[in-house]
Order: sequence, then C-alpha cells, then structure tokens
Amino acid sequence: MFQTFNAPPAAAADGRLDNLRDAMAQAGIGWYLVPHGDEHQNEYLPPCAERLAYLTGFTGSAGFAIVGKTQAFLFVDGRYALQAENQVNSSDFEIRSLVTQPPARFAAGILQENDAVGFDPWTMTIAQAKSWEKACSKAGATLKPVGNLIDRIWHDRPSPPLGRAWLHPERFSGKPAQDKLAGLAEKLKEAGADCLLATDPASIAWTFNLRGSDVAHNPLALAFAVLFADGTKPVLFIDRRKLDDETEAGLEALAELRKPSDLNDWLAANADGHSFHCDPQLVVRALADGITGAGGRIIEGQDPVALLRAVKNGVELAGARDAHLRDGVAMVRFLAWLDGQEPGSVDEIGAACKLETMRRQTAAAMNSELKEISFDTISGAGPNGAIIHYRVTEATNATLQPNNLYLVDSGGQYEDGTTDITRTVAIGDPPKGAARDYTLVLKGHIAIATIRFPEGTRGVDLDSHARKPLWQAGKDFAHGTGHGIGAFLNVHEGPQSISKRGMQELLPGMIISNEPGYYREGHYGIRLENLVIVKEASSIAGGDMPMLGFETITLCPFDHRLIDAGLLSPHETEWLNTYHDAVHRALSPHLEDAERAWLQQATRPLLESKP
Amino acid sequence: MFQTFNAPPAAAADGRLDNLRDAMAQAGIGWYLVPHGDEHQNEYLPPCAERLAYLTGFTGSAGFAIVGKTQAFLFVDGRYALQAENQVNSSDFEIRSLVTQPPARFAAGILQENDAVGFDPWTMTIAQAKSWEKACSKAGATLKPVGNLIDRIWHDRPSPPLGRAWLHPERFSGKPAQDKLAGLAEKLKEAGADCLLATDPASIAWTFNLRGSDVAHNPLALAFAVLFADGTKPVLFIDRRKLDDETEAGLEALAELRKPSDLNDWLAANADGHSFHCDPQLVVRALADGITGAGGRIIEGQDPVALLRAVKNGVELAGARDAHLRDGVAMVRFLAWLDGQEPGSVDEIGAACKLETMRRQTAAAMNSELKEISFDTISGAGPNGAIIHYRVTEATNATLQPNNLYLVDSGGQYEDGTTDITRTVAIGDPPKGAARDYTLVLKGHIAIATIRFPEGTRGVDLDSHARKPLWQAGKDFAHGTGHGIGAFLNVHEGPQSISKRGMQELLPGMIISNEPGYYREGHYGIRLENLVIVKEASSIAGGDMPMLGFETITLCPFDHRLIDAGLLSPHETEWLNTYHDAVHRALSPHLEDAERAWLQQATRPLLESKP
Repeated sequence: MFQTFNAPPAAAADGRLDNLRDAMAQAGIGWYLVPHGDEHQNEYLPPCAERLAYLTGFTGSAGFAIVGKTQAFLFVDGRYALQAENQVNSSDFEIRSLVTQPPARFAAGILQENDAVGFDPWTMTIAQAKSWEKACSKAGATLKPVGNLIDRIWHDRPSPPLGRAWLHPERFSGKPAQDKLAGLAEKLKEAGADCLLATDPASIAWTFNLRGSDVAHNPLALAFAVLFADGTKPVLFIDRRKLDDETEAGLEALAELRKPSDLNDWLAANADGHSFHCDPQLVVRALADGITGAGGRIIEGQDPVALLRAVKNGVELAGARDAHLRDGVAMVRFLAWLDGQEPGSVDEIGAACKLETMRRQTAAAMNSELKEISFDTISGAGPNGAIIHYRVTEATNATLQPNNLYLVDSGGQYEDGTTDITRTVAIGDPPKGAARDYTLVLKGHIAIATIRFPEGTRGVDLDSHARKPLWQAGKDFAHGTGHGIGAFLNVHEGPQSISKRGMQELLPGMIISNEPGYYREGHYGIRLENLVIVKEASSIAGGDMPMLGFETITLCPFDHRLIDAGLLSPHETEWLNTYHDAVHRALSPHLEDAERAWLQQATRPLLESKP
Repeated sequence: MFQTFNAPPAAAADGRLDNLRDAMAQAGIGWYLVPHGDEHQNEYLPPCAERLAYLTGFTGSAGFAIVGKTQAFLFVDGRYALQAENQVNSSDFEIRSLVTQPPARFAAGILQENDAVGFDPWTMTIAQAKSWEKACSKAGATLKPVGNLIDRIWHDRPSPPLGRAWLHPERFSGKPAQDKLAGLAEKLKEAGADCLLATDPASIAWTFNLRGSDVAHNPLALAFAVLFADGTKPVLFIDRRKLDDETEAGLEALAELRKPSDLNDWLAANADGHSFHCDPQLVVRALADGITGAGGRIIEGQDPVALLRAVKNGVELAGARDAHLRDGVAMVRFLAWLDGQEPGSVDEIGAACKLETMRRQTAAAMNSELKEISFDTISGAGPNGAIIHYRVTEATNATLQPNNLYLVDSGGQYEDGTTDITRTVAIGDPPKGAARDYTLVLKGHIAIATIRFPEGTRGVDLDSHARKPLWQAGKDFAHGTGHGIGAFLNVHEGPQSISKRGMQELLPGMIISNEPGYYREGHYGIRLENLVIVKEASSIAGGDMPMLGFETITLCPFDHRLIDAGLLSPHETEWLNTYHDAVHRALSPHLEDAERAWLQQATRPLLESKP
C-alpha cells in the first residue's frame, strides 16, 4: 500500500515547546516562526522537514506556528480545524484561522516595539519573508534570521531522503533534456537574466527528464539547479547516492553534478556580477541572501519552467490518454466490485485498499506499473464525504451505509501520466435531495466540459460556469473548479487553474481538472472530477475566430441512480450519453465479462426528459 | 442640443510641433510626453486641457504623444485608429497602438542613455509617473518635470471652465454631506491617514452633494478637497465664481473654501508631519511632490469615496428607477417614431437629434428636466453600428438603410439619476444572419439579468456568462459586459465592472450596465444594454445561503423582428415575456394613444418555441 491509515499521532511529546523556548532565549529572540515549508516548497514534505508536526503534533498539509515566550499560536485552514483540535495540546497552542487572519497580519497586532522575530530563511520564500518584514516593521519589531531552532532541539530528526532517482525516458517525456535546456536559455535571455536558480523539484524533474522518490506521491528527486542563459553547462545539486550508474552518467552528460549542500558555497564563489532569475514564490530567502551577499543580482519573476511544463507535448498528451484508459479500467473494476457488495459491508479503508489494488493489478495487466498513488485517497462515506480534504484513518473509518452517498477522490502515478478522478455513488437507494444536488453538480461539470472560449481566456473566466446551476439553487462549493496536473509529475501544478485566482491564460496542451462539488455538512459530499486537455475546438460554421475547448480524458461512468434526468437540458443529456458511449467503447475490451456487463448497464443512454 | 456633429477639425495648425520642439530645447530635454489627462483625470476634458488635440489634431477620448527632437509618436487604441489617421498629419506623427505596445514600454526601446524626458507632473498620476520613471531608468534616461510646454506655446488657450455649480438636494442624494464627511473621517482613521487628498471631481461631487457643469456630460464642478480624519473642517478648493450665494453659503457651512490655485501653497504650509491618503491612479504627481516636499507622507490606496459612491442608498435607487421610467418613455416614443418613418428617410444625426428632443420633452412633461445627455449618442446605421465607440459627424452621417440594423446607445442626466441604454432595431426586414446574432446577444444579456451569485462574487466572475452563447457560436465581443454608473454623476464609474478586470466584489446597491454586443465589421453592430441594480435575490427553497442578483431598471422593448424564438430556452422566453410585460405596464400610462398601441405590439408575448 502506498497509503497508510494511521490515526493521528499523539500530541507532541511534552517538553518540545519548552526546549524551543530555551533555544529562542539563547538566540536572543522573543518570537519564532515555524512555517509548513521546506527549501523546495514541497507540497508533500519529506519526514526531515515535518518540523511543524514535530513541534505541535499537527500533521495537516498546510499550517503555520508563531511561538512567543509565553504564548504560541497555530494557524490552520478550515478543512483542518477539527484535526488540529484533536492533534494539538490546547494548553500549549491557541488555534487560529490561516485564512481569515493570516499569521503575518495577526502578528502585526501582537508584536511590540523592538521585539525580535526569529525565522529560518531556508524555510521561507522571498515573498513570505518580505511580507513578514513588513508586518514586523509596522509594529517596530525586527525579523531576524536565526537558523532552524526546531532542528536544534529535534535530536532524532530523520536524514534527508535518498529515494531512488531515474531518467524519465523520451518515449514518455517527448522531448530531450538538451532541447528543454536550450529553450530555457532563450527564455532567460528574453528576461535579461544570466542564470535561473531552480529550487522547485518539479521544475528540475521536467527540465532534466528526471524522476525520483524522495517524497510521497509526487515522483520527485529533491535537488537544486542553476541554468545559464549563455549555454554554460548547468549545475545540478543532487545527492549522488540517489543515482544508479546509468542515471548518473545520463545526468553528467547534461550537467555538472554537485552536492545539494554545496549550493551556498557555489553561490558565494560564482554569483558575483551575475543576475539570477528567481521566483519569489518558490526560492527561499536564504538563497536570495546567498546571491545578493555574494554580489549577484536577483530578477524576480515566475519560474519560466512552470508554464513550459504546464503545456504538454503530443507524446505527453498521448501518454495521459493511455494512463487514463488504464485508470478508467481500474475505476470501473472498483465500482463494479463495490456495487456487488452488500450495502453496509464495506468501510472507507477497505474501499481505498481495494481501489489501490485494482489500480496496481490493472496497470500490471495492461503492461504498465502503478508507481504511486497521486495522493492519499479521499474515501468518504456519508458525512465524511462532506469534508473536502478528508483523509480516512483507523480512528475515523466509517462504513459505507445504505441510503447514503460515497465519495472517492483518487489517482494513480503511471510513467506515462498522472491521473486524478472523483466519483460519487449511491450506496443502496440515495438519500432525499441527493439526486437533485448530484445533478446540479453534474450540470456544472458538463458546462465546463462543453464550453468553448477564445484565445486569451483565463481559468477565472470559466470558474463560475461550474457553479451557476448550484448558484441558481442557492448553493455553492468552497474550492476551485480545477487545478493543473503534471505529466507523471505533481498532481497539483500551476500556473493554470480554473478558479477565482486563475489568472493564467489557458493554452492548448494544458491538463486541468474539472471538479465541481457540493457538500451538505453532516450528510454527504458530492464531487465529480474528470481531467481535461485544453485544445482547439472544432470549427464552427459562421464563427469569426478559432475557439478553444476541452477534451475530457477521464473514462468512468457517472452514477445513473443519482441523475435527475428532468433537470438536464437536451444538450446536457446528449453530452452525457456521448460520454458514456465513449467510456463503454474504450473500456469494454479490457474488462472481464461480469465487469463488462456492469459497465454496459452503467453507461446505458439516459432518455431525454420530456420538456 | 447637448451634442454637436462637427466633422473632426483640420489637422493641427502648422508650426505647433516646431514650437514645442523649441520649448523642449529651451527646457533642455530631448523628449516630451503629452498624455490625454488633466489634474482631475477627467473622462471628458475641459477645452483648456485638450492639449493632445491642440498639438496633434486628434480629438479622441484616449491617447498619448511622445515628441522627440526629430520623431514624434501618437498612441491611440483600436477604436480610434481610423480617426487618428484622418485627423493627424502623418509626416509629423507616427501612429502607434496604445494597447499592444503602451507608450512607456515603447519608450524603453527608443530612449538612449542620458536622454532627458520631460513631462508636466500636473497631467500624470503618481502611478503613471512611476511607470515612466521605470521605463526611463531601464534605458538609463531621466524623467524630468518641466512644467507644461504645450501651455507655453498655446497662446489662445481657453481659460479653465466656470460652469455653474449647485448643491444636489437631499431628496436626490439621500444623505447629508455632513454624514458623508463623518463616515469618511472614520474610513481615514481605519486607513491610518490624517487626511484625504481628493482630486476626482466625482468624489468631491458625492462627498459635498455638489453638482456642476464644467465638462461635457458628467455633471461635475472641477475642484480639489482635503478631508481630515480628526473632524477638522475640510478645505474645498473651488472657484467661487461658479457658485451663487445659496451654493456658496451651503458649501461654507461644510468646508473652508479656497481657490484651486491655492492648493499647492496650502500643502506647502500644512502638509508637514501629516499623512495623506492618495489614490495613485487619481492624484497627479505634482500634488504628491507637493505633499512630500513639504514634509508630509503619502499613504497610497484606492480613493475611499469610490466604493461609498458606488453603493447607492435607497433614495438614490428610487431616483434611478424614476429616471429610468422617464427615459424608457422617451426611448419608446423615439422607437415608435422611427418605426413610423419610411425606411431610408432618416439619417444618423436626424435620429440622434430626435432622441434628444424626445428625452427633453418627456422629462419636461413628467415634471423633470433633462440636464444633459450622458454622453454623445452613438447613432450607428449598418456598418457604422459595428464601430464600438462610433460618434456620428456631418462627415460620416449615414442613412438608416432598409434591410439593415440601427444601433443607438444613449442616456440622459436627470437630477434623480443617470441613464445609459442601447437598443438595436431592424430597419425594414433584417439582413441575413442578423436575427441569429441578435438572439445570441440577447441570450447573453438574459444570462446576466437572471444570474444569482453568492456574496464575494466579483464582476470578473460573471463577465463570461454574457459571452457564452456567442462563444459557443465562435464569436465574441471586444469590450467589457458592464460598467458602473453614477447617481446623477459620471456615466462610467468604478470600482465595479463586469469585465475581465472586474476584481471589485459586487455589493447590493451598485448600479451597473449589462451590455453584451456583437459587431460584424462592415455589416452591422448589435448591442443590448440595460442597467441593473445589485440586490439580494429572492430566497430559494432548499438553498444554503442568501444569494445576490440583479434588478433590471431600464424599461424599453427588445425588437421582436430580430428575435429567433427557436434559439431561446423556455426560461429565456419567460424572462423576455415577463420583462416586456413590466415595460408595458410601466410605460403605457405615460404614452399617447398611437405610441401606446406601438408599445402594446412591441411588448406582445413571444410564443415559446416548440422544442
């Protein structure tokens, strides 16, 4: 299993907060900042960087602590409020909202003149440190780099990960690393920068066609790199112990290899007189200080790899379609199995395990391999489905009860593509109101699936089309409609998104999720997620301009029992029937007889409602 | 008539560019910047500030000139490209796009090291000057305030306007100026500022319940003001010659009155040690320099009046509804008259004049007064309708030809409200394709009119709903869906808009236009514009949260001859019929028999199409 179902660990061992306060006193600071972030701004932290969890006991994927001499505050967002209460000792930490009053704004209210606020510049980005400097200066306090005080008190802190890394073959990447490096050199010239300091492991993975296993779920090898505008061989800072001979030789052909811990010395020796393109949202302050301290100059701008990585080439898109065929077969096997179980006989962990098994077996049977799951499966029965980022543990594990819904959000990492799919199904007869809610979500999903839009359209321009059917019914959902997704890379990637913050223009070749939802607290959650590729839409007679649209690549039926056909327009019904037909035709050849019969039934045409 | 139909004036008199270059040499600069902007950032400039037109001959409402020793460039946007070509001497000025390569970015490419770039800090905002400083420093050049060199060579430059100003009665404003000033003092305290420097005449008009007639169309009295957080009596810098005794006495009760030309001296004497809230998009650089030069501090932020002004109170909303009733009667009289004319017998100017007459007569007959028209009427027959900001002149005046469309975008300034309405009608039988295009635009209009949305929704989140029917047909329109509108104030006001840049949350009480369009170049233009009020939507059974929606206040039928009923959904047809019924009931009592019969026919129910 790639996923564990451990209950949250007990609250942090006594004494850690006291130890930190001793270290703070030695360092001469009154406050210390503990972000949930490392020198790569990883979404999934390696164990050695789980400092917030070490200090507070809180294991969520986002958070921030401010520790003072007598007070301490832990900031979490709404989805983690309950978990934080369970995991954290409330006599040590006061729990606050990360959203309504972000830490830096909160701090401006409690800091006193001349307070010294310590932080580790290896764990905060240029932009984060800047906002903290502002907050401190407003209060007359000072932000002070003091190294990592958690590491100083964390005596059994794990070593940095040494997961195996390997070269991602061109039959999957579609483009040699040399070509990518040449293209990036051009981008740097355009930006007027001598070098790019790359610290995001996903950017390094894409650039060097490198994959690894240093963190959970995202196939990353933790590393830094410096690329040059003038064609000088890049320097890749990576631990050679992760590399077999072939990988090492392949990387040496592309780059000068050095240890990650050499980066600071390298900057000290080489930065003078050079300009470094740094993404202020990604590069940590320690590295920025390293560059400027050595006489280099920083040019702030979005990581140029991000957009290049987001626009997939033909080989990557073909791989994504292949991966989704395989993933769809696994999903159908899982759903057919689930449908055959007595309602009330399956629990959330059992379902998640079965699904992972189906993915692994299906991949093997179809000449591939499940390298990882894309993220911890969200396996939510009834009310647990209404918790948007629910992660089942032994402590919360619920039975899939009859007359309720089951929401399952999952994905697989295959060498040819990353998948992410959510389906919601009825267990027994659906509860009252569920079919209407499901159909409203489905209408929003179809609105995105079928929309056409001109060049220049951004995700923000489309987001509300997924919401309109819910809005008209006085409902909404509290997350974005879609996020970008990598090609055997991170399951969440920017810069594209379909959301209120989606200011990136949508470009052909981008892969993005289409996942509206509806959450009825205490009752059930509904989310319907397919991945789509941005592509040129078929031309329209009488149209003035070429339009873009989406190609849905996820293959899995929607639950007929939850569709209120009377709420669908003829166009929506037509889309659903066409989609189901495509799902049936694509997956049938890969299924056993019983599963094929189940799929046939699950993808039968919906009769158009009489208007 | 409030509108004139003069053909564009002849190209600028010979010698003006030479005179400017002489003045530039005397001032020791190699380049001089001539924006289309004054010290109030007026949309409609007073004649004394028409410096760009004086120099170049170009009379459009947006533009920018960069004059060098041997080269000169005029930047205009797409809507003015043709007009600029006609008005400007091409051997003097090279015409460039204001949009694809804005002046400051363009300049960065032509400026040389050590070039001195002169500008008048009274005509450029803090933000504009900052972007020019950046562009200059990139090239190693210097931005240098040198006073206004156009004024130096413009010997018969008109004096500043002295239009009559008056107090806007509380029966229209709904709130005494004292209360507004008290509320603003609170806002300033929240922002941590001692003072607000108000330079936008619309903000001064709203704050002091003052209206005037210094510029075309917008009922503004040009003035500056300084307001205080601590309740000190504000200082209003206004020319007393605009005020009759009653107005002067009323203003003196609210503020200390001074001459506009005193502002700089006042800042020099009083700014020291005080912080001034300044909107960098509104306050000109000269005033910012005046504050900082005297030892004051600037706190940059959006003009706090803008949002207060945008959210209308109950009296203003009632006034808007009254004004729209009157305006709807005038529009119906006009459209009924037009329908009675022999196709081919009316021209664009004749139609615009008739409409203005109808507005004036109707207002008088309904115990009101047409104080101004909201803007020069866009009266576009056939292909002229496809020019988005078309302004008819004697030179372009076209006949409303049979078998084509006529687009008329117009509005009235009444003491109780400002109107803005666009209708498109068929002259004779509509041309091929026009009904389909009209219906697609109408579907977009109805989508906005009927949408519900949760609190926090911004205009950008709604804009594409007006476009979707066109998008699905491979079409789009090249302007925003809606702009804010004042209460007997500016016809275009922020911060709210329904557009790609509409980041302001929509709040109950805002008035905004709903005006999707479609422009078939060389053939016809279609635009359908009503004004709407943001309000709480009726509650929805089973809904989770209160929703907002729009109340349409414009009253005027849509042309049945251009509606393809088969393209409308049952909901859309229902909206149209309900709207037409409301129009009929509201306007009928105010019409003559023949007009009433016309309206009855024009608002007859559309039969639902058989699906």
